[in-house]
Parts: sequence; C-alpha cells; structure tokens
Amino acid sequence: MFAYEIQAAGKRARAGVFQTPHGVLETPVFAPVGTQATVKTLTPVQLEELGASLVLSNTYHLYLRPGDELVAGMGGLHRFMQWPYPLLTDSGGYQVFSLARTRTVDDDGVTFKSHIDGSSHRLTPERSIQIQENLGADIIMAFDECADPGDREYIQQAMQRTHRWAERCLLAKRRPDQALFGIVQGGVDPDLRAASAEFIASLPFLGIAIGGLSVGETKEEMHAALDVVTPLLPENKPRYLMGVGTPEDLINGIARGIDIFDCVLPTRLARHHAAFSPEGRLNLMNASFARDQNPIDAGCSCYTCRTFTRAYLRHLIVARELLAGALLSIHNLHALVQLVKDIRQMIFSGTFEENVPQLLERWENNAARKQP
Amino acid sequence: MFAYEIQAAGKRARAGVFQTPHGVLETPVFAPVGTQATVKTLTPVQLEELGASLVLSNTYHLYLRPGDELVAGMGGLHRFMQWPYPLLTDSGGYQVFSLARTRTVDDDGVTFKSHIDGSSHRLTPERSIQIQENLGADIIMAFDECADPGDREYIQQAMQRTHRWAERCLLAKRRPDQALFGIVQGGVDPDLRAASAEFIASLPFLGIAIGGLSVGETKEEMHAALDVVTPLLPENKPRYLMGVGTPEDLINGIARGIDIFDCVLPTRLARHHAAFSPEGRLNLMNASFARDQNPIDAGCSCYTCRTFTRAYLRHLIVARELLAGALLSIHNLHALVQLVKDIRQMIFSGTFEENVPQLLERWENNAARKQP
Repeated sequence: MFAYEIQAAGKRARAGVFQTPHGVLETPVFAPVGTQATVKTLTPVQLEELGASLVLSNTYHLYLRPGDELVAGMGGLHRFMQWPYPLLTDSGGYQVFSLARTRTVDDDGVTFKSHIDGSSHRLTPERSIQIQENLGADIIMAFDECADPGDREYIQQAMQRTHRWAERCLLAKRRPDQALFGIVQGGVDPDLRAASAEFIASLPFLGIAIGGLSVGETKEEMHAALDVVTPLLPENKPRYLMGVGTPEDLINGIARGIDIFDCVLPTRLARHHAAFSPEGRLNLMNASFARDQNPIDAGCSCYTCRTFTRAYLRHLIVARELLAGALLSIHNLHALVQLVKDIRQMIFSGTFEENVPQLLERWENNAARKQP
Repeated sequence: MFAYEIQAAGKRARAGVFQTPHGVLETPVFAPVGTQATVKTLTPVQLEELGASLVLSNTYHLYLRPGDELVAGMGGLHRFMQWPYPLLTDSGGYQVFSLARTRTVDDDGVTFKSHIDGSSHRLTPERSIQIQENLGADIIMAFDECADPGDREYIQQAMQRTHRWAERCLLAKRRPDQALFGIVQGGVDPDLRAASAEFIASLPFLGIAIGGLSVGETKEEMHAALDVVTPLLPENKPRYLMGVGTPEDLINGIARGIDIFDCVLPTRLARHHAAFSPEGRLNLMNASFARDQNPIDAGCSCYTCRTFTRAYLRHLIVARELLAGALLSIHNLHALVQLVKDIRQMIFSGTFEENVPQLLERWENNAARKQP
C-alpha cells in the first residue's frame, strides 16, 4: 500500500513516487500546512488548482479542537476537510514542546496545558498514535521530543527518549492504511544526529522524518546535520524534513536527499502582505505598487498572477480586504510547490545539481531566515 | 447598446433582458455588493461560479481609496477587479449621507469628511458622474439626497434637490457606454413618492432606481411606496430597488415590478456566522452543529453545500478560520441569486404570483429585519 519507488536520482537528490491510500505522491514534494484542518483562507479546490498534492495538519490543534473523536465520527480528516488527496499529521510533539509554556516531560509522556482554555492534557506515544488513527491521515508521525538547541546533555536525553517513544509508537499502531514515519532528532551535534539516524533507520518505519531543524540553528548547521543524517538512511524509504522551509532550504534539502517538506512560511508571509518574486520578497503594501500594472511574477502561472495586478493587490491590502490574504497565499504556495516540481523535472533530466547555484541565486532575496 | 426587453410578465412582475457593454443581464437579478472593488473574501471565479451576473461597487469608497483616477489609469473597474461582466456603481450619495457624520448639504452639492482620514471632500452631481465615468461601470447612478425618514418637510426638500441634481447628472454625462439611472426619492409619503416617480420617469434616463427604502421604515411602508411608484414608471426601462434586501424583500419587490436588487446582507451575515436555510437563518457557531453531518441546505447546489458539513463550518468558525466567511458568503449569495433566478423561471411559466405565499413561507425565518 505504501510502496516507495525512486524513478530518477542525481548525486544525492531523488525523484520518486510514494503510493498512499489517497493517491500517488510524486516526490520531492512541498506540503502546504492546514493546521486546523484548513490551509488558511483557501478552499480545497483552490489548493488543488495551485498544484498541492500533500497537505499537513496538526495533531495538537485538532486534538484540542474540534477533537479527534469528533473528526473520526465525521468520517476522518479527509472527509471532514474535503481533501481527497494524501494527508500527513504530525505527532503533536513539536507543538507541545514549542507552544505550551507549562509542560512537564517524563519518560512516559508529556503533560501540558491547552493554549485555548488552559485545561490540562497528556500526550504519550500511544495516545499520539491513537489520536492520529482517529484523524486518519495517510502519513502519521512518531511522538518525539523536540529539544531546544544548545544544551547537549538535554538534547541527548531527549533523543534517547525519542528513540524509546519511537518503539512504543510502532507497537501502538493498529491501522494498516497509515504509514508511520520515525523521527531523527539529535540537535546539531553530528554524533548525536548519526546515532539517531542509525537507530531510527533500524526500525520498521515506512518513512523517516528529520525533526529539530529550522528551530534557530544556522543554515550551515542545518546542512551539516543533513549531511550526516541522509547518508545513513535507507534509500528505499521517503525522507521528510519537518517544518522546512524557505525556497533555499528546499533547494539545499533536495540536494541532500530529502523528499518531503512542509512549512507555514508561504501562508504566514501572505498574511503579512509579502510575496515571493524574482525581484526578491515583495511587501505589496508598499506605495510603490499603487499603480503597478504587473502581476507579482510575470513568469508565474498561478491564478493570482494570471489575473491580478500588483496595484489591485495593494489596494486590497490597504483597504484591509481579506481577499488579499487568499490571493497571496495562492501565489506563495504555488511558488514553492512549483519550485519543487521544477526541481523534480531537473532530477529526471539530470540537470538539478548543475542548476543549484542559479536556483539559489534566483531565490536568494526570498530567504525567510537571515544568516546570523 | 442598453436595450431592455421584457420577455415575460405576470400581474406586475417582469422577466427581461438588459443589454450592457459587458453582456446581457437577465432580470430580475440580485447583485452582490463589492464595496471596495471586491465582494468580500471571494474571487471573481467564485462569484461567477455561484451564479452572480451583476456586481455593485461603491463610488464613495473607490473615490477615497484607491481613487477613481487610479482606477481609470488601470483600465477601469472591470479590469482592475477582473470582473468581466456587468458592473453597477452607486453615486456616492447614500454613503455620504449615511456614513459621514460631518457633512453639509447645499443646493450645489455636499461637503463631507472621509471616514478613513477625516480629510474634507466635496461631491456634486457633476463630480459624481465624473468619478463614475472614471470607474467605468456599465450602470451608473444619478447623485441623490437620501433623506432620513420622518421629517416630511426635509424629505420634500431633499426630493426636490434630488430632482434638480438628476437633470444636472444627465447634462454632465459624457460616456455613451454607461447607462445612467435616475433615482426616485420621497420617503414613505405616497404623494411625494408619486411626484418623484413622475418627475424621474419624465427624464431620459435609461433605467429608474428607487432609493430611500430599507432605511428604517416598516415592510408595509416599503410595499406601499413600491405600490405607488412602479405603476408610474415606464414599462420599457429596468427598475432597480437600491440596497434591498432580504429574501422576502426580493419576493415582494419582484411582485411589485422590480428588476434589479443589491444588498450587503448575504456577505454581512456570513461574517457573523449566519446562513440562510430552509429551517430559517442558522447561526453556525451554535454547539448544536458540532457533529451535524448535513450541509447548510441539502437542496442547495452551491460549492459550500455540495462540499462541506455544518460540523466542519462550525469548526472553522470556532477556530476563527477566515475560510468560514468565504464559504458562508458563497452560500448566502448563491441563495439569493438563485432565489431570484427561480422566480424568473416562474414568471416565464406564469406561476410566480400563485407561488408568492409559499415562497414567503419558505423564507420567512430568514428575514433580516424584524417587524417593528
């Protein structure tokens, strides 16, 4: 049910297909984030039209609201949000560790308070799998501990806990129509990353995720971690770099053998009036766009660029019209989905590696994170 | 260019076609309101899909932001907002009189302060036409004074001013590709309404609007005003009841010979989580919908009802997801657009009048205004 086949490969980059119960995923792939069972401001039809094939949703948020049992009662997440294509849920681990200020970790699991009403909740590996089985995504994640960068001793402890929890998630899993991915942790320490990659790779997961990156480390540290990890992973399983990233992260990640990405950046930028463009990231509220008859990107084939001028988009932003957020989300998501699709074609034609410098140059002014 | 042809008629109801430079309008018709060159939260594609044929935009708002000259420089309103079908602009009169708290009227025009930045502006009949010619809608409105209900002497004075301004608008108009409509005023006084109808009907307008209703009077007063006015209007010109209305207003208006309606009600209700339904107006935030697997209206063919459950819509509302507003706008607008289309077919089949009681019963719990 979850066969992964590599169809073309470069030096380390891979182009493949991953079978899921809701269709074939062509990899590499960029997944829009639909935190609360909706990619913010967009309908499923708009998502499909902009080229999305995989959507991520967040277990932490859906567990709290509307509740995983309610979603199960409504026929599962695909039917609830009317996304008939592949879905991925995270385990809740990242949110619990990053969102909840008041949480306590023990070897069995995590107790935390809801950001909605302060009520107390507990997640364990078994509970996370149970919730994800209620939600019913095609790809589900092991419950992990995403440690803050910096403290090596704690990162090692968290990594070891993540490993024990990974085994418990495999034992807890019941549904055959979901692919469970293990998560490699270990911060930016090469030895810990290698140990984690080897351990997670040794377990019978159907895919491997790399967590704990894009959480404050430098680009060089992220690349070094990937350079340690991906060579230790089995070739025949898809690899997912969680919560990443910027256009340059996608280019660099694919060049290091990553197959799946997700990030809130495109929709978050849209809410802040920013758009990816060949000229760099544009803030469309800027007065210089008031009479600009060009689309955001004349080379872009998204609905927004095929239809509207920068002047109109700026008007919507200045007039505080919500349509602006939807139109910019369409463009920004399409830009990253299409970038990854273009790279996929380059992998087939054997031209990706030679194009990396010019791809990075094309996107360098659209970077999300400044180098420290 | 603006031929109006009646194709079928009931006792007083009419079904016709109105030629415009951007296509044929089938009347009666309900126009969604796109105040700031956008029907809130919806793309032109979504508007077209829900069945809209005519969209109204507001001269007051567009004059202030982004400015009518900017819109003209961008190729006009159709091109700016990418609505390739008929557009209608009001004259700014209603907004100036209702929105601006600090305005002074004289026989020449109105001086008012912007609601955006408090800056001082002046509208006259000539200026309103000039702005509307810059915007470039297919149907434009004479500049009128919409008097508050109650004070007969002031209403008469405002009506007379409206009449003089109507003549000045006709003289000021230059563009041959825009149909200028005159506006009947006169409050709820039958004699004033009759005098205004006769005067406006005597001028060479291409259509007649009825203003100053749905501003606080009772349903009976609105019906009585329509009963006085429409028999005095020429048969061969389209009639537009401005800013109206609720489903029952549409039914009652068409029965009294109205051809064109517009109202912010469907989109405003959507922002307040309310949806038209056969069970009456639903507030979808209500906990009773948490596990409701039904669409808003099982008999509705809109995208929202074809796709989503009430439970999902409630989840979006509770989670403060903006998609809820777009999906409810699609449904509410489709409901009124389709109601009027259904009535049009009934006029063709000669069954509208006999169906009025059951149409009113079907929609009675969806009324926007309570009887005083």
